[in-house]
Amino acid sequence: MHQREAQHMNFSHNETTTDYLKRVRQFMKEKVIPAEKAYFEHLEQPGQKWTQPPIMEELKAEAKAAGLWNLFLPEKEYGVGLTNLEYAPLAEAMGHSFIGPEVFNCSAPDTGNMEVLVRYGSEEQKKQWLEPLLAGEIRSAFAMTEPDVASSDATNMESTIKADGDDVILNGKKWWTSNAGHPNCQFFIFMGLSNPENGRHQQHSMVIVPRDTKGVDVVRMLHVFNNQDEPYGHGEVHFNNVRVPKENVIAGLGRGFEIAQGRLGPGRIHHCMRAIGASERALTLLCERATKRVAFGKPLASLGGNRDIIANSRIDIEMARLLTLQAAYKIDTQTVFGAMSDIAQIKVVAPNVLQRIVDAAMQIHGGAGLSNDFPLTALFGYARVLRLADGPDEVHRGMIAKFELKKYAQNDKSNAEKR
Amino acid sequence: MHQREAQHMNFSHNETTTDYLKRVRQFMKEKVIPAEKAYFEHLEQPGQKWTQPPIMEELKAEAKAAGLWNLFLPEKEYGVGLTNLEYAPLAEAMGHSFIGPEVFNCSAPDTGNMEVLVRYGSEEQKKQWLEPLLAGEIRSAFAMTEPDVASSDATNMESTIKADGDDVILNGKKWWTSNAGHPNCQFFIFMGLSNPENGRHQQHSMVIVPRDTKGVDVVRMLHVFNNQDEPYGHGEVHFNNVRVPKENVIAGLGRGFEIAQGRLGPGRIHHCMRAIGASERALTLLCERATKRVAFGKPLASLGGNRDIIANSRIDIEMARLLTLQAAYKIDTQTVFGAMSDIAQIKVVAPNVLQRIVDAAMQIHGGAGLSNDFPLTALFGYARVLRLADGPDEVHRGMIAKFELKKYAQNDKSNAEKR
Amino acid sequence: MHQREAQHMNFSHNETTTDYLKRVRQFMKEKVIPAEKAYFEHLEQPGQKWTQPPIMEELKAEAKAAGLWNLFLPEKEYGVGLTNLEYAPLAEAMGHSFIGPEVFNCSAPDTGNMEVLVRYGSEEQKKQWLEPLLAGEIRSAFAMTEPDVASSDATNMESTIKADGDDVILNGKKWWTSNAGHPNCQFFIFMGLSNPENGRHQQHSMVIVPRDTKGVDVVRMLHVFNNQDEPYGHGEVHFNNVRVPKENVIAGLGRGFEIAQGRLGPGRIHHCMRAIGASERALTLLCERATKRVAFGKPLASLGGNRDIIANSRIDIEMARLLTLQAAYKIDTQTVFGAMSDIAQIKVVAPNVLQRIVDAAMQIHGGAGLSNDFPLTALFGYARVLRLADGPDEVHRGMIAKFELKKYAQNDKSNAEKR
Amino acid sequence: MHQREAQHMNFSHNETTTDYLKRVRQFMKEKVIPAEKAYFEHLEQPGQKWTQPPIMEELKAEAKAAGLWNLFLPEKEYGVGLTNLEYAPLAEAMGHSFIGPEVFNCSAPDTGNMEVLVRYGSEEQKKQWLEPLLAGEIRSAFAMTEPDVASSDATNMESTIKADGDDVILNGKKWWTSNAGHPNCQFFIFMGLSNPENGRHQQHSMVIVPRDTKGVDVVRMLHVFNNQDEPYGHGEVHFNNVRVPKENVIAGLGRGFEIAQGRLGPGRIHHCMRAIGASERALTLLCERATKRVAFGKPLASLGGNRDIIANSRIDIEMARLLTLQAAYKIDTQTVFGAMSDIAQIKVVAPNVLQRIVDAAMQIHGGAGLSNDFPLTALFGYARVLRLADGPDEVHRGMIAKFELKKYAQNDKSNAEKR
Repeated sequence: MHQREAQHMNFSHNETTTDYLKRVRQFMKEKVIPAEKAYFEHLEQPGQKWTQPPIMEELKAEAKAAGLWNLFLPEKEYGVGLTNLEYAPLAEAMGHSFIGPEVFNCSAPDTGNMEVLVRYGSEEQKKQWLEPLLAGEIRSAFAMTEPDVASSDATNMESTIKADGDDVILNGKKWWTSNAGHPNCQFFIFMGLSNPENGRHQQHSMVIVPRDTKGVDVVRMLHVFNNQDEPYGHGEVHFNNVRVPKENVIAGLGRGFEIAQGRLGPGRIHHCMRAIGASERALTLLCERATKRVAFGKPLASLGGNRDIIANSRIDIEMARLLTLQAAYKIDTQTVFGAMSDIAQIKVVAPNVLQRIVDAAMQIHGGAGLSNDFPLTALFGYARVLRLADGPDEVHRGMIAKFELKKYAQNDKSNAEKR
Repeated sequence: MHQREAQHMNFSHNETTTDYLKRVRQFMKEKVIPAEKAYFEHLEQPGQKWTQPPIMEELKAEAKAAGLWNLFLPEKEYGVGLTNLEYAPLAEAMGHSFIGPEVFNCSAPDTGNMEVLVRYGSEEQKKQWLEPLLAGEIRSAFAMTEPDVASSDATNMESTIKADGDDVILNGKKWWTSNAGHPNCQFFIFMGLSNPENGRHQQHSMVIVPRDTKGVDVVRMLHVFNNQDEPYGHGEVHFNNVRVPKENVIAGLGRGFEIAQGRLGPGRIHHCMRAIGASERALTLLCERATKRVAFGKPLASLGGNRDIIANSRIDIEMARLLTLQAAYKIDTQTVFGAMSDIAQIKVVAPNVLQRIVDAAMQIHGGAGLSNDFPLTALFGYARVLRLADGPDEVHRGMIAKFELKKYAQNDKSNAEKR
Repeated sequence: MHQREAQHMNFSHNETTTDYLKRVRQFMKEKVIPAEKAYFEHLEQPGQKWTQPPIMEELKAEAKAAGLWNLFLPEKEYGVGLTNLEYAPLAEAMGHSFIGPEVFNCSAPDTGNMEVLVRYGSEEQKKQWLEPLLAGEIRSAFAMTEPDVASSDATNMESTIKADGDDVILNGKKWWTSNAGHPNCQFFIFMGLSNPENGRHQQHSMVIVPRDTKGVDVVRMLHVFNNQDEPYGHGEVHFNNVRVPKENVIAGLGRGFEIAQGRLGPGRIHHCMRAIGASERALTLLCERATKRVAFGKPLASLGGNRDIIANSRIDIEMARLLTLQAAYKIDTQTVFGAMSDIAQIKVVAPNVLQRIVDAAMQIHGGAGLSNDFPLTALFGYARVLRLADGPDEVHRGMIAKFELKKYAQNDKSNAEKR
Repeated sequence: MHQREAQHMNFSHNETTTDYLKRVRQFMKEKVIPAEKAYFEHLEQPGQKWTQPPIMEELKAEAKAAGLWNLFLPEKEYGVGLTNLEYAPLAEAMGHSFIGPEVFNCSAPDTGNMEVLVRYGSEEQKKQWLEPLLAGEIRSAFAMTEPDVASSDATNMESTIKADGDDVILNGKKWWTSNAGHPNCQFFIFMGLSNPENGRHQQHSMVIVPRDTKGVDVVRMLHVFNNQDEPYGHGEVHFNNVRVPKENVIAGLGRGFEIAQGRLGPGRIHHCMRAIGASERALTLLCERATKRVAFGKPLASLGGNRDIIANSRIDIEMARLLTLQAAYKIDTQTVFGAMSDIAQIKVVAPNVLQRIVDAAMQIHGGAGLSNDFPLTALFGYARVLRLADGPDEVHRGMIAKFELKKYAQNDKSNAEKR
């Protein structure tokens, strides 16, 4: 086969990615995966559900020392400065373990909060909150979703931010505030309605709220399929007349949506790549079981439609990965705003792929797949949450259709297309 | 957003592709699409079903003059020498019209036959058959599928090739021999069982059979959804004691499967990219109808689940394209044999994507979508054929699973993967 | 197993149905199926596309003599008076052949037109048009769908009916007017806008239009997947200042929608049961091919996911049949208006089941399944049309959801339902 | 609309069912649903996970007094003697609450065990074990599934039953032994390999094992999506040289499979009808949320494809119910062995319908749907387990296909079916 030099389009990782990927994978294999047992055993001890397993801090120190730290951040002044495209495969590799991302200081919602502070934070805010986050010394939460309204439409938000002298006063109920249970969680970024007099997307603001501020009440930790995802958890947090100085507003009142949108793009790349990593893990479990278990005289892999399931899973993973990499490339080259449809596309695809493969893996495992002997129910919960977090599938499909239909708004070319 | 230079991985076309793509698209828009009407009207005149519309020869001459000729062939000595990855987007662009590929001398099965002759043909064979094919002066057919056996398993083939002195004698029934009806079709490549004593994949051979050889009988032209795809058609061809000289055997007896496998890889890239082009056309038709037709006071695009359909169609096209480009890249860099799973993957994906989108477009068009006022039934037939041609979906899924399961054959790492 | 007498609910046919079903099946097997060949060969002769094959008239005479005639009509004064539930299995049996329904004078759109005339026709209309229809001497058409508007919303209809002295004057373009090509078709029931001043569903009327009325122009016969369904066909019919006496209005001006709705209920039972009969035929073809063709050393039925396909097809047919019988029972016991959701449900289910099974059967047949050697493409076209005829899937789903959501309109019981 | 008396086929419940259904529904509404809160609160108190909530015993006494007791049992000598068809709608009604079935002494696996003892038990066994079960004084478990082999193929079973003098000695590991954690659970029915010398389906036996027998070790209670289904639970139970008298063998050695098959038929009706009841509950939750939550200015029910989801859910429930009732009718009229395909069909359909609707309901609920504020994750776990319990979907599809393909084994009628 004749080969020529393809100057641009290329489906191989570049040298930077290749190098980091090798190192992250090795770290995952040698350090993280073997540490999972100790991590979860710590949490299962009486009274330790909401404490940080010491092994995590050890792993973080090692990852930091190895230069595998804050890899998600494209800004060179805060790290190695990988593009989204370069980072994406590393997120996938980290996604092979539930505890992977935190080890590399690459776990949500801290990553999004760091991005917000890097891009919109004041010098003061950076010093006080960004620096310890970057150092992995503290964690943080993002208080946006509300129990009493459909959060798929973010403009439904009912929480309020009112200026009062040099302060702002916050009120409202939030939930699905991930990390709220973590002992290291030191602050929330709270989003609420500050400027109802403005246009639809200039009415909201983001405010930094130290965790111990008066009026902040973590009323409970939510369950996800009976799991509280300790030690970070998902809190229902009530804010009752919470007063913080105006300096805690990020980038100025009314800029909440602008910040949110920028925040979500790279975060969705991370989520989706981790979901792809998790899909690979689920497929591995599926294939291992399918090749080892025997029924009716054959390994399960040789029975009925099981090979179709394996083939379709492989196809789905390949396609989801390529689509996510394409979206990452578009963010890198055209900004988040030029990649809106692409980001929505991956947000629909990747979690659904993961859910389908995990469901199939459960079926191959029989009852064992539903038990805690395998990580499948945890992976299922992860997939199921992702189909809602950062906007449900439905909202993203609506967005994709909107972009597609824009092409047809003003012109009439149907006759040309007919045969 | 920080940006750095991605040295390798890149989702933009390179300069060569960008340049050719611009020219092919322009030629399609300015020359090919406007010629469709004259082309099909020619065929509808009494007695002209199986004749070449003159407009086609005019378009071919123009394309050749414009250097848009034989672009599918990577071998530099026979053309511009594009890689599969470079050519793929051009195939997509040609796929926007049923008559596109022939215009550029890039239509099946001639493309596959040219590849076979380039790579396996003797000097004599090249001179006599390859040169006029490359020049677009003649067309050719590939006689492989048989009516009496399941062709999904190619080793079922019952046709025979027997050596007899300086000749070989061919016997057997073939069908789905595309191009058999074309007035320019000058020869068949016939595949049959020549060496039953050999191993399973060394038993068959390919032989060039001039169309007018005694004993070659095109008994009928098959219908596909009541359409005979004139003027090329799909023939049922019987070979009764057909005698040709041994020089017509390609590459030697017993090498049929080896040649077939090499032949099919790039051909599947072409088919799939054209299917993606056709999918884009179907989605365009769908969106145009959805934005113009009104029911219950709204354009159809604003009713029920129609936006979900549009969004899913866009996602499916993007993923199918990326997967096909990845497969093309693998063929270029790892040969067909390193890309077997990838090629099987796209062969499952692209035709099914096309079928789904065309079906959805029909639904949006109402009865009109099933009539000949729109190209949707023709596109449907094309998709439906593709799910069988070059192997049914089922065989390709089996192949993908086989490659996937190979990873699990010899090792036992399940404990490491469990949480 | 202990058994007791179930007084009411019962999944066996009653004696009437059992008796007729036996006779219809026997007639189908002994007379209709063997006649198919002669029927289609007649149509393929030059110049005979749009003529009635004599064998059909012979079969009709035999069916009439055997008392298997007009079985669809529940009114005892016009026949045997079967309920919809009793007739439904007979429609399924007739659906095993494309030419079955006409043999028993049970084919659309004549059945619907007869129902309309029985229930809404004047004595004069009954004498002139109903009687010859009941006798099978003439056929008829229903001119409702229009090319220029989305017919999924019937109120879009643009054709007009204007009173003018003792006449009404009709104008408009209609298409998908089935039977328009049949030589025996003697009249159209035309639907149009007569009373724009009325409420949304009292604006339209139905008018009987003899075929040879001045201004009636059958401009072309539409294709369905390249098939014109000769000899009855689907016409595009233009009505240009067509003048007929007011006596031809059915039931009075403004009652068109009322009549249409009553007309469609039983008709949908018939369509769906025939689709189920066609599904059984497709599954039979699939299983026969799957048990006879061999690939990779096994019958296709033993390869990959093919048994899942067979199992799912059996399940789908069983469920579609039961759902349709339930809808028939509801029409019988609660009238069409009490069965609106049920009728919409079967209209979504049955055609989609048929389409899926036919598609699967094609895949098992390979290329042969797309050719005219098997009836699969014809069955596919039938299924595809049914997903649009009498309202597209989407409209029916909307109707079902509307009925479902009505239950929740006024009450608040969510707390009671929560755990 | 004309109506006539349908003598047999009828889609209304008979008087017996109508009467019991009214009473069960009223009991569910007035007693059971209001008691759920107290029931679950009892279990959440420290140390009470594996104790019987007193409210349950109160409800049982009331249900017994009301004559709503042991309704599942067709044998008149042990209760009211309803047929499977008559009982089925009652099972659906009980399925609206997780605690419903036990209230009426109709919960698995006790129901199956009672059926086994009624039909195969010795007088002694009936006196000792059946009578207290019928009285609701004790509960029981069924030890069949094994952790170390694929239980989808029951002949894989590795547990052994060895005769030793007047005793049998049992060895083996079992899991998914539901009820093993219930304080009232007094015995297991253990299934194992006793006669390896016999034919494939005469090798196994069932033996009654009192819970406190030496060598019976409940090693742990399994999780299902992190839920242990307290207080009954699903145990992993090891049997180490467990010795019981030969009198505890049910019906004689080698008859295990025969008993198992008879046991599973009605049990699958029960499971499926309960799943349908659960599906109705999930759809109710979905619709309530969809009508109350507002996004983008509309209730969720009016956004995107949500009405399609509602319509499809309604259709799926109707079809699943009819199919299950048909299967019940076949068991009643043709025994379990005449209803094998039907039983397999419902076992595939009902759990999948429930899983789909619950998944859709979760999506409409947003994050709340994954939390413990709604019963959706519990319903999801129930559906997911059912797709595996009593045989995975795959095995049932294989069974259905086997029955379907039997029709084609010996004959050749394909030519008759071709057009």
